[in-house]
Amino acid sequence: MKDKEFLMIPGPTPVPESVLLAMAKHPIGHRSKEFSAILRRVEEGLKWVFQTKNDVHIYTSSGTGAMCSALGNLVNKGDKVLCLIIGNFGKRWAKIAKSRGAEVIELEVPYGKAINPNDLKEILDKDVNKEIKIVTMTHNETSTGVTNPVKDLVALVKAHGALSVVDGITSLGAINCPMDEWGIDVLVSGSQKGFMIPPGLAFLAANERAFEVHKKCEYPDFYFNWTDYKKNLEKDTTPWTPAVNLVVALDAALAMMKDHGLENIFELHKQNAKLLREGIKNLGLKLFVEDESIASYAITSVLPPDGVSVPDIRKTMKEQYDITVANGQNDLKDKIFRMGTLGFVSRRDVLTALAALKETVEILKK
Amino acid sequence: MKDKEFLMIPGPTPVPESVLLAMAKHPIGHRSKEFSAILRRVEEGLKWVFQTKNDVHIYTSSGTGAMCSALGNLVNKGDKVLCLIIGNFGKRWAKIAKSRGAEVIELEVPYGKAINPNDLKEILDKDVNKEIKIVTMTHNETSTGVTNPVKDLVALVKAHGALSVVDGITSLGAINCPMDEWGIDVLVSGSQKGFMIPPGLAFLAANERAFEVHKKCEYPDFYFNWTDYKKNLEKDTTPWTPAVNLVVALDAALAMMKDHGLENIFELHKQNAKLLREGIKNLGLKLFVEDESIASYAITSVLPPDGVSVPDIRKTMKEQYDITVANGQNDLKDKIFRMGTLGFVSRRDVLTALAALKETVEILKK
Repeated sequence: MKDKEFLMIPGPTPVPESVLLAMAKHPIGHRSKEFSAILRRVEEGLKWVFQTKNDVHIYTSSGTGAMCSALGNLVNKGDKVLCLIIGNFGKRWAKIAKSRGAEVIELEVPYGKAINPNDLKEILDKDVNKEIKIVTMTHNETSTGVTNPVKDLVALVKAHGALSVVDGITSLGAINCPMDEWGIDVLVSGSQKGFMIPPGLAFLAANERAFEVHKKCEYPDFYFNWTDYKKNLEKDTTPWTPAVNLVVALDAALAMMKDHGLENIFELHKQNAKLLREGIKNLGLKLFVEDESIASYAITSVLPPDGVSVPDIRKTMKEQYDITVANGQNDLKDKIFRMGTLGFVSRRDVLTALAALKETVEILKK
Repeated sequence: MKDKEFLMIPGPTPVPESVLLAMAKHPIGHRSKEFSAILRRVEEGLKWVFQTKNDVHIYTSSGTGAMCSALGNLVNKGDKVLCLIIGNFGKRWAKIAKSRGAEVIELEVPYGKAINPNDLKEILDKDVNKEIKIVTMTHNETSTGVTNPVKDLVALVKAHGALSVVDGITSLGAINCPMDEWGIDVLVSGSQKGFMIPPGLAFLAANERAFEVHKKCEYPDFYFNWTDYKKNLEKDTTPWTPAVNLVVALDAALAMMKDHGLENIFELHKQNAKLLREGIKNLGLKLFVEDESIASYAITSVLPPDGVSVPDIRKTMKEQYDITVANGQNDLKDKIFRMGTLGFVSRRDVLTALAALKETVEILKK
């Protein structure tokens, strides 16, 4: 039905009506006092979600832009970068590092698994000359529905003296990721996920250790330059014209998040994901990630039942019930489908999705 | 008065209500057939405004992002880049080129002037070994209110065998800039100007000559990579999640532009700027750019009358009449103020601004 679509993909995610209406206000001047006040408030809200005392840069870009910012402000040609890969988004770090001329080492595990900290330790122990400068990882791997043990991985990277660069694009505002407590050096995220606003903004926080390395970066990225962003943030502004309306939307969304509370947000995501996983198993379908200890609370990957194809499930869910779920990516295309419970999703939405999935499977099995 | 602000800055510019409401619709999935259809239509609309047969890439970024894309897909370390500078935005090209390790030659003229094609010719004639690979220029220099003779400059660059890279951020959709007819190799623009939508999108078109040079770029920018954008555009999609709501807004704005017609849009900007310039002179104020042949139709720079300061003019215009005009930038700060007539601005708006400016000067002269 026209205008009835409900998004259960890993982004864009559902946006509250109040946020959409805040976004629809006429843009104000980005160098005005009024906008600086909004930017200051949003900045404090982002620090609260990142659980950090570091500045959070607000970029006009997709989440991938923030990933490019991370490596584009740190990597010199020939630097050794270790990329921990559990899916497509882990692989993206490796591609970005290579685009900067880095020497990339990849630790890749079968998709559906998380990185075992012992495997990371083994590689780091072998790096006796401490040549590995940066270790990249994905907190919540959207392509598979797996959450990495970032706390343990980051601790190993820190002990080794390298920088940890973490993709929190689909975990921030959904799964606990306390930047300062865990000692993450660089953490990035995006707007159209746990932050409940449309796509177009990305965020990055870097600690002092990371800034020290940045200072030695010979050709830092110009558009995402950390030094420029830091200098402008001190004056409550941005180096380039920001997506004003999206920042205003974020201000409204952060106010909602504060009302709810971080702990409650994490608990909601956990309970919604558990409800969805139980329901899927009750329907007789198989979860792609069976291990509860690494299963994502933001996105759940499901195997189609025998004799039913992923495209048919997606088509029926959309055409009959106005629910959009995602296909698998690359090698997992048509092998799994993915259901997001990320951001503005309530228990009612999960029950609705399960009811629709039940009927979809019944229709397709006939 | 709250919510009464009228923007006469060079961006964000006024946004039509219908565009704001289109933007406020719930985001749809960016990999859906529905969104691909919108993207295809927007792509055709952009080609129409760029007056080109080349693809137009749609980036989620500010206009500066598109400038970074241009040089980030062409420049190798050590390349010679000639930057024609008539203001801050011309200077930005030089900074971006340097951030890529280019050897930059600057042809800078006093602010308020345009580049004289003879001066460019002289430099190119001296470059007997054809070492200059790229020449950057600004079509409409927002910081001063001057329009460069791009047609003549590009012809010289082409004859020399170098690539012309043109900033059309505040000219596209306001001042005639036919990419193909003039032989521009790379042309960039941004959303919050002539396109009448809020900030957050930027556009770039590159012709085959430019793509040939791109192929030899050793470390092309990852986020703005032309090859990736081209490949994805063939499937009516983008490499990364686009700012879906802004693309939907652009679709609505382009429909309005088509209804109006390109020639009419250019004529409207010309007539509005002429009306504003005449009115300012009638108030006894001086124009920063007196030469009609290079005065911008998008932004008009004005000198404050004796004994009246630029900050006071801006403050009174805003507080008494809810009209925001821009200060000068850098060396021109507090020396000029700038009034935009860019995008969704009617003859009524110009008359209103003149009436407010008249009263403002009277108040401040008392």
